[in-house]
Amino acid sequence: MTVLPPPSRVRVRYAETDKMGVVYYANYLVWFEVSRTDWLRHSGWNYVEMEAEGYLLPVVQAHCAYKQSARYDDEIEILARGTLLSPVRIRFDYDVRRAADAALLAEGYTVHASLGPQGKPRRLPPRVLPIFSRES
Amino acid sequence: MTVLPPPSRVRVRYAETDKMGVVYYANYLVWFEVSRTDWLRHSGWNYVEMEAEGYLLPVVQAHCAYKQSARYDDEIEILARGTLLSPVRIRFDYDVRRAADAALLAEGYTVHASLGPQGKPRRLPPRVLPIFSRES
Amino acid sequence: MTVLPPPSRVRVRYAETDKMGVVYYANYLVWFEVSRTDWLRHSGWNYVEMEAEGYLLPVVQAHCAYKQSARYDDEIEILARGTLLSPVRIRFDYDVRRAADAALLAEGYTVHASLGPQGKPRRLPPRVLPIFSRES
Amino acid sequence: MTVLPPPSRVRVRYAETDKMGVVYYANYLVWFEVSRTDWLRHSGWNYVEMEAEGYLLPVVQAHCAYKQSARYDDEIEILARGTLLSPVRIRFDYDVRRAADAALLAEGYTVHASLGPQGKPRRLPPRVLPIFSRES
Repeated sequence: MTVLPPPSRVRVRYAETDKMGVVYYANYLVWFEVSRTDWLRHSGWNYVEMEAEGYLLPVVQAHCAYKQSARYDDEIEILARGTLLSPVRIRFDYDVRRAADAALLAEGYTVHASLGPQGKPRRLPPRVLPIFSRES
Repeated sequence: MTVLPPPSRVRVRYAETDKMGVVYYANYLVWFEVSRTDWLRHSGWNYVEMEAEGYLLPVVQAHCAYKQSARYDDEIEILARGTLLSPVRIRFDYDVRRAADAALLAEGYTVHASLGPQGKPRRLPPRVLPIFSRES
Repeated sequence: MTVLPPPSRVRVRYAETDKMGVVYYANYLVWFEVSRTDWLRHSGWNYVEMEAEGYLLPVVQAHCAYKQSARYDDEIEILARGTLLSPVRIRFDYDVRRAADAALLAEGYTVHASLGPQGKPRRLPPRVLPIFSRES
Repeated sequence: MTVLPPPSRVRVRYAETDKMGVVYYANYLVWFEVSRTDWLRHSGWNYVEMEAEGYLLPVVQAHCAYKQSARYDDEIEILARGTLLSPVRIRFDYDVRRAADAALLAEGYTVHASLGPQGKPRRLPPRVLPIFSRES
């Protein structure tokens, strides 16, 4: 049985806000990155080692639906779940919540190609596969 | 007859790259912002005046599909097109191209609510409507 | 006796790196912000409340000396110390270290004006003064 | 006689503002980067070629003094001047002005080491030296 990685936690930085007084929309994609990195680390696949072994996971698609605004100094939880789309393609889904009341602020996903050192598709290493869900 | 606004142009900043040597994925959403602002300015609707008049256009959805990497110092053209989804909702579609060879690097869209000063939906001002396409 | 706030901790985000493979230089100023915010919170002066009470602490000067590179996924510790320069001016000094080996990566400072709601200089509230060092 | 490169021009992006309604302080360092890159390009030293030839110019020191706030949608001019401190060290000084009225918003400098591919100091190529001022 797989124990799912816990959500990542960030605190909103002043740098991440904009003149509307809320978090600028592109920064949610940065938080997505933080949480999928944590998720992979939990799965035993440190992104640094991964790149050292010649894997890259560039984003080929990103999506975010914004529900409520995150504000300066809010504590934010980002829950990631990884799904195997094919041996060379994965998807991460994300929920972004305000820690104080668990309000859903945004949800989104990213799709990634698994590439080898020459930029060619490369099958994910078998040891990381168990943590991913499968598309039924 | 409407003359469409020309594409916006940015040059890739060092700050916008990441250790993969290419532009970090969230920065495309910043370029989307640059081009829709230019687009609105062309339509006669300066975003600064707009906010002064009590309109906000927060993003409720953002999407980007990445085709090829933008690299440091590349000149980039972002073409925006605005579409009226309803009197209080608009969509922008974007093409991101490398200026040197017009290669399509990414395409995406954002959906925006039109809000008034209290955060309630507010109909877009009639004078800006003509530049938007209509969903058929 | 004052108990000094502990260092803040961040993990280097992919977004913060550049094509040289290290953290882009402007991002150290973002970490400075993270650590002075934590420092103020420790002193009992939450920055959010502070703004609600009509104080602003805009940066009037910033400096950073870069010693060694921070790299992706490094755990970083930023130690801040606040000094009272005058009743309306403070300075923060920062040490940025790699948590793994305490190597000094950068050091710097920021100087801030204390402003009231109209942008006029405003004396810092007495309750926050004890935590600051004094210039001798 | 050397013709000095003209100032660089940027328009303030929404992404660059913060909840105080003005440009976040770290972003001035990004503009510094934009202007020194333009300056080098004018001098005939494209930064991309430079890196391809095995030179790196990491920042070893950065400083900025903030005078007035830059605001969203402002057109900004950044004037850079390069000075040769030694055969392996240069300094850039910057003035940041609002284009509309030439008001000085900030001024600062960066100091850079010239490094070769192994990270060792490497003398700047002779062809780029003439454009630099000399310290007297």
